[in-house]
Amino acid sequence: MAARLTIGLLGGTGPQGRGLALRMALAGHRVLLGSRDPERAAAIVGDLLDGRDLPIEGRANVDAAAEAEVVFLVFPYAGQADVLPGLAGPIGAKVVVDVINPLGWDEQGPYLLDVPEGSAAEQAAALLPEARVVAAFHHAAPKLLIDPDRQVETDVLVVSDDPAAKGLVLELADQIPGCRGVDAGRLRMARQLEGFTAVIVGINRRHRIHAGLRISRLGDDKRRRLNAELGEEGP
Amino acid sequence: MAARLTIGLLGGTGPQGRGLALRMALAGHRVLLGSRDPERAAAIVGDLLDGRDLPIEGRANVDAAAEAEVVFLVFPYAGQADVLPGLAGPIGAKVVVDVINPLGWDEQGPYLLDVPEGSAAEQAAALLPEARVVAAFHHAAPKLLIDPDRQVETDVLVVSDDPAAKGLVLELADQIPGCRGVDAGRLRMARQLEGFTAVIVGINRRHRIHAGLRISRLGDDKRRRLNAELGEEGP
Repeated sequence: MAARLTIGLLGGTGPQGRGLALRMALAGHRVLLGSRDPERAAAIVGDLLDGRDLPIEGRANVDAAAEAEVVFLVFPYAGQADVLPGLAGPIGAKVVVDVINPLGWDEQGPYLLDVPEGSAAEQAAALLPEARVVAAFHHAAPKLLIDPDRQVETDVLVVSDDPAAKGLVLELADQIPGCRGVDAGRLRMARQLEGFTAVIVGINRRHRIHAGLRISRLGDDKRRRLNAELGEEGP
Repeated sequence: MAARLTIGLLGGTGPQGRGLALRMALAGHRVLLGSRDPERAAAIVGDLLDGRDLPIEGRANVDAAAEAEVVFLVFPYAGQADVLPGLAGPIGAKVVVDVINPLGWDEQGPYLLDVPEGSAAEQAAALLPEARVVAAFHHAAPKLLIDPDRQVETDVLVVSDDPAAKGLVLELADQIPGCRGVDAGRLRMARQLEGFTAVIVGINRRHRIHAGLRISRLGDDKRRRLNAELGEEGP
């Protein structure tokens, strides 16, 4: 079981950021929900807590980045390239979890945008050269994350070139009820994970559901064995 | 229930082609397994049947394309651009199911190749301008397809710009035990389906399994309703 961490969610005021903030706090972590505007962050946190006693606080992004031990990037894709260079200092060599889906939308529905670096996560790695970048949580439905009474029914595919960082994020995924962390390989696979979100968003729109995905024939026994290979403690 | 069809599997001598040939024959269709060399096709069919009484016959690709009502493309990606122009005549305006995954492999494992047209399926559409191109069956594990005693545990994500062709292929997917056809949108999504195969192949290698994927929270009731909208008969 991972220790209690301080987790910063940068650009965390959208549905995905709020949902992950809630779930990470429910898992026992301290959460700093970041926005450019710390007053806006504080107001969003007030709404999110709605009187609940959970360790979530609002911060300016730069302060959340400095205080946190693990940093999630939940900006809209359009903001990432502008915002990250100013955060590279406080982020330093921390574990960075890029959750960003670079999607566009037209009359045919959602589609994957071109990203010069290959994926949003590889763009983050280029802009944060010291950081230990992981891509994950693309397919966790915000509407389910935000409702603590519901299971978030998805495997969380986790990719990184840093095995220990990947192991930590696999463990964080397992701490959300209904989620299951699955090692999906190297960071270069991030493009496939980000793109698959367009498929899921399209299915969601067509069927009016909040879908996720499950890797079939992958038993929990095998998955745990992998985690052990990554040097983690068992659950 | 779809009528009995004659299905041509072009480039069908590999594991995916043999597995789909077996499953389509078991579903009651007549199958023409195509190869450049009709003698090689006949030999592969002999091995595949292994004394079983199933309607699978070997053909030259060009003859399979001419005789079939529905054509599956199961070439290696490297062959598609060379082979398809010579088959455009006999294929004509038929439903074409592109199953091709344009994958490379290096020391980091599988990865998605660049395709000028965006995806193997869109390349087929460009080379077969009259055909009604569908992309599907990327994630059905050959090792499971080939074994009639096992379930092929995957959702079959089906994309096309031709709703009736998509409806037919959704129905073919449902005819394989363990498979479930899911409408995954327009043909431009084929890139995401082909790319996700790299993720699954990597997971397979890491865990020594034959994984597929399931869309979570998509009940069979909703899925059938969609098929009805596409103008198909119910099962």
